[in-house]
Amino acid sequence: MTCFEDLVNFFSDKLKTEINTLGQREPKKLYEPVVYSLNMGGKRLRPALLLMAYQLYKNDLEKALPAAFAIELFHNFTLLHDDIMDNASLRRNIETIHIKYSNNAAILSGDAMSILSYEYISKSQTNRYQDLIALYTDTALKICEGQQFDMDFETTSQVTVDEYLTMIGLKTAVLLAASLKIGALLADAPEKDARLLYELGYNLGMAFQLQDDLLDTFGDQNEFGKNIGGDICLNKKTFLLINALKIARDEQLTELEKWISATHFDKSEKIERVRRIYVNLGIAEITKDKIDSYFQVFQQKWEQLNVNKQKKECLLVVANKLMSRQN
Amino acid sequence: MTCFEDLVNFFSDKLKTEINTLGQREPKKLYEPVVYSLNMGGKRLRPALLLMAYQLYKNDLEKALPAAFAIELFHNFTLLHDDIMDNASLRRNIETIHIKYSNNAAILSGDAMSILSYEYISKSQTNRYQDLIALYTDTALKICEGQQFDMDFETTSQVTVDEYLTMIGLKTAVLLAASLKIGALLADAPEKDARLLYELGYNLGMAFQLQDDLLDTFGDQNEFGKNIGGDICLNKKTFLLINALKIARDEQLTELEKWISATHFDKSEKIERVRRIYVNLGIAEITKDKIDSYFQVFQQKWEQLNVNKQKKECLLVVANKLMSRQN
Repeated sequence: MTCFEDLVNFFSDKLKTEINTLGQREPKKLYEPVVYSLNMGGKRLRPALLLMAYQLYKNDLEKALPAAFAIELFHNFTLLHDDIMDNASLRRNIETIHIKYSNNAAILSGDAMSILSYEYISKSQTNRYQDLIALYTDTALKICEGQQFDMDFETTSQVTVDEYLTMIGLKTAVLLAASLKIGALLADAPEKDARLLYELGYNLGMAFQLQDDLLDTFGDQNEFGKNIGGDICLNKKTFLLINALKIARDEQLTELEKWISATHFDKSEKIERVRRIYVNLGIAEITKDKIDSYFQVFQQKWEQLNVNKQKKECLLVVANKLMSRQN
Repeated sequence: MTCFEDLVNFFSDKLKTEINTLGQREPKKLYEPVVYSLNMGGKRLRPALLLMAYQLYKNDLEKALPAAFAIELFHNFTLLHDDIMDNASLRRNIETIHIKYSNNAAILSGDAMSILSYEYISKSQTNRYQDLIALYTDTALKICEGQQFDMDFETTSQVTVDEYLTMIGLKTAVLLAASLKIGALLADAPEKDARLLYELGYNLGMAFQLQDDLLDTFGDQNEFGKNIGGDICLNKKTFLLINALKIARDEQLTELEKWISATHFDKSEKIERVRRIYVNLGIAEITKDKIDSYFQVFQQKWEQLNVNKQKKECLLVVANKLMSRQN
C-alpha cells in the first residue's frame, strides 16, 4: 500500500496539471490569483488524508481525485480570505494574495475558489452523492463559523477552554474529519467506518491544532516555519494562554496581565517572560495531556475500523508523525 | 394559476420564516449580516422566476422553495461582495454591510451566504440532483467571471460591444436563465423545455440588463431608484457609452472624450451634455433595438415551450412587465 508521502506526491503531481488547466481559464485576472494561491505550497495534508481513507477500501485512486482537489481548493480559499481579514502580508514566507494583487482580487478570486471547489466535488462519482454534497457544505459552513468565533475571541476578555475547543473544532478539526469521511463515502465504505473515520479525523484535528499552539510557543525556531512566540506577542487566546489565565494566581497573574495589557514592549522580553510563566504553571504539560487525550480517542476509533491492520497502519503512522512534527 | 406578484408574495412570506431561522444560528456576528442583507429587499425576481418555471409543470411549489432560497441567497451574496469591491455605501438607500458592520464581517458573512446557498440547493429533492448541482455551480462561477470582466473594463480603454454583451451575459443573464432551468429540472420537465427555459431566461436577462443601462441615463428620476446619470458620471462602460464611442465622429467624439477625461466637472452639466450627445447619435434607439432583438428571441423560445398557452402566459406577462418597467 502507498503511504503518506507517496500519496502527497501523487496528489501534488496531479494538482500541477490541474493548476495548469485553471491557469488557461478566462478572465486571467480572476484565475491568476487562484493559481498563485495553489502554488504557495503547504502540506497537502487534507487531500492526502482523503486519498488515504479511500485507499482503505478501494485502489482506483483517480476516482477520489476531484474530491481531493476540492478539499485543497477550499482550504486554500479559507487561507486567502483569512489573510485579508487578518491583514497578513506573508504566508509561508510568500507574499499573500491581497498584497501581491489587491484586496478586490483576493475577495473575488477567493469567491471563485470556493465555488470551484464545488465544481470539483460535484464531479465525484458516487451513489451517495447527496450525502457527499451535504457533508461538504456542512463542513464548509462550520469553517466559516469557526473563523467568526476566532475573530470574536480577539475582542472577548473571557474565553473559556470549552469555547476555545469548540472554535478549533469548527475552524480546523472538521475539515480533517470530513476529508477522511469523504474518502470513505467515495469508496462506498460501510456507514460505520465512514462515521469512525470522521470521528478519528476530528480528534486528530484537535490534537493537530493544539500541537500547533504548543509549537508556536515551545517549538524549535530552526524547524518551525513561523517566528516562535507570535501568539504570545499578539495575546492570541490559545489553549496555552486561556489555561494560564485560568490557573495563574497572585504575582504570576499580575505579571501575565501586565504583559497582555502592555502596549509598548520588547518582543523577545515579552515572549521570554510569558514563556517562563507558562513553564512555572506547567502549561506545556497541560497541553500535552490534552493532545494525548485526543490522540487516545483517535487510536480507539482507529482500532475499531473494520479494515485489516496492515492496510490501516499507514493512517496511524501519519498521525504519529503529525504528533511529533516540529513545524 | 398564480402569477408573478402572488409568487413574489408567496416567496417573501416563506423567506421571512427562513430569515428568522437563520437569525437564531451562532455565531451571531456571522449570521446577523446575512439576515440584514436578506432584509434589504429587492424584487425577488430570480426566486419568483424559478417558482414560475416549476409551476409550468407541477403545483406543489413547496418542493421548489429550497432552490428558490438558494438563488436569492446567492444573488444577495454577490451584491454584498460587489459592494465591498465597488466601495458602495448605499444600496436601495440602505447602508451596505461593510459600512454597517465592517469589511471583515462583509467578507466572511458573504462567504457564509455563498455556502448557505449550497445548503439550500442541496436540500432539493430531484432525481437529477447531479445536473442540478453542476448547473448551479457553473452559474455561480460564471457570475464571478462576469464581475471580474466588469472590473477589468474599468481600466480597459477599448471595450467592444461584443465584450460588453459577454460580460453582462455572465454577470446578469445566466442567473435568470439558471433560475428558470432549475425550476424546470426540479419539476422534472422535458429536457427540451429545460433547455428552452435556460435560453429564454438568458435572452430576457440580456434585455433586462440593457434596459437597466437605458434607465440609468434616460429613466424618470421620480420612478428610478438610483440617481439618473450615475453611469455617465462614473464613465461606466455601458452599452450606451460603448456604442457612442464607436459611432461618434469629429466634434461629438472630441466632446465625449473631453467629458470622459474631465477630472473636475459639474455633475448635472456632464450628465446633460453627454445625454445630448447620446440623443444626437440615436443611442437610445440603438439600445432599444438591441433590447427588442433579445426580447424577440425570448418570445420565439417561449412559443416553443411545450406547455399550454394559458399556463405559460404568466411568464410572458412578467417579461413584458420587466421590459416596460421604470425602475
